[in-house]
Amino acid sequence: MPQPRVTAAVLVIGDEILSGRTQDINLNAIAKFVAVHGVDLAEARVVGDVTEEIVAALNALRAKYDYVFTTGGIGPTHDDITADCVAEAFGLPLYEHPDIIAMMAARPDYELTPARRRMARVPEGGSLIQHPMKGPPGFQIGNVFVLAGVPSVMRGMLEDIGYRLKGGAVVIARTLRVDAFGEGALAEPLAQVARAHPDLALGSYPFFSPEGYGANLVVRGRDEAQVEAVLTELEAALRAVGAERLSRVEG
Amino acid sequence: MPQPRVTAAVLVIGDEILSGRTQDINLNAIAKFVAVHGVDLAEARVVGDVTEEIVAALNALRAKYDYVFTTGGIGPTHDDITADCVAEAFGLPLYEHPDIIAMMAARPDYELTPARRRMARVPEGGSLIQHPMKGPPGFQIGNVFVLAGVPSVMRGMLEDIGYRLKGGAVVIARTLRVDAFGEGALAEPLAQVARAHPDLALGSYPFFSPEGYGANLVVRGRDEAQVEAVLTELEAALRAVGAERLSRVEG
Repeated sequence: MPQPRVTAAVLVIGDEILSGRTQDINLNAIAKFVAVHGVDLAEARVVGDVTEEIVAALNALRAKYDYVFTTGGIGPTHDDITADCVAEAFGLPLYEHPDIIAMMAARPDYELTPARRRMARVPEGGSLIQHPMKGPPGFQIGNVFVLAGVPSVMRGMLEDIGYRLKGGAVVIARTLRVDAFGEGALAEPLAQVARAHPDLALGSYPFFSPEGYGANLVVRGRDEAQVEAVLTELEAALRAVGAERLSRVEG
Repeated sequence: MPQPRVTAAVLVIGDEILSGRTQDINLNAIAKFVAVHGVDLAEARVVGDVTEEIVAALNALRAKYDYVFTTGGIGPTHDDITADCVAEAFGLPLYEHPDIIAMMAARPDYELTPARRRMARVPEGGSLIQHPMKGPPGFQIGNVFVLAGVPSVMRGMLEDIGYRLKGGAVVIARTLRVDAFGEGALAEPLAQVARAHPDLALGSYPFFSPEGYGANLVVRGRDEAQVEAVLTELEAALRAVGAERLSRVEG
């Protein structure tokens, strides 16, 4: 019996991504992380530091997907409004989490300023997500994980999330590389194989090399034997139309 | 009299971004491109190769923002469904654009296969967006620009878009770098200056260097003299609380 699909969305929060100042790399890291846990990343959104936009996006995503990961906006400055927005989206009050206050109070040469106390605020009922360098934690509330925006911190926080996910079967991806044979020529046999296996996802990712056009053809599914069989079928279909340089590659 | 804000959204289309296979860099390139034209990128979404998701996201974004840029899904293979989805969103039929067919027919050693003809399909009333290497063009329909997913091609297509945008005043961004002084300590003066100038956007982007925590404080606005004045005010406010290593930096 096939396992139900488990889905996730990412909500990237921050003017700096939309202004072009910063290249986001968190989405890609989360995509790879959830895939390993058998969770499909189904959508991502980027919004600026605007309360109404964050609340609306968060409510849309958490209703539609099994999990939501937010990144950014949990620092001490006035433009860090993610905790407020998450609390508003859930209709919950924020409170200063005693574990975070205790952690901050224990740091040498670290005054508990009002700005720093902002980072201790968590919606009622939220559980903490550990910071990899003992800085202010993120938190989980319901199906939403609230993470830092700094990529090294964000990735460290993911380490405290894996055990909380109830994933489905992990998606297996296998890649067939076709050299010196363009997408225009391989599209038809590829489409035929795809139509014959509607339960698998077949994708084509073209490239251009000194030897001309080529493509990486990716077959994705949850049953390894089936994915392998379809890859073999695809190989035969491509040879039948004249493709000669086929190789299985990683990734 | 202040000019009205002109807004844009990006819709990244492709399973390969959500599976983690590919790191998107098109969003950042478009963000920088529209900023130069006085257009604010206000939101971005990433959706997979699923008709209903693409159509719904496109209709939500084109109704809310002045411009929408889509990337990906315009190649010849079965998973390239962007043109179909854009046509469906607008309620328009697709037709084979005679200029694209003529361009393809003129290429040596290039058979006009059914798969390649797919790349000639444009919604009725759409205008073409030139491909930088004379490959299949993108198109504009209404306020939506439909671009390739391959970054070098996407960036080339932007060159054929600038003159179509009616931008507002360009946003000026100035950065004050604060070294050896953390966000927790600068948050309060920063918030005070931000409150005094609600028409400007002030952001704080922390970093960690061998000399300890620091932050880049960015002031954004449309009036250069005002942005400069607020930067000077911010500098004074930070010196007043003990920050010593302040420098104006690019970007």
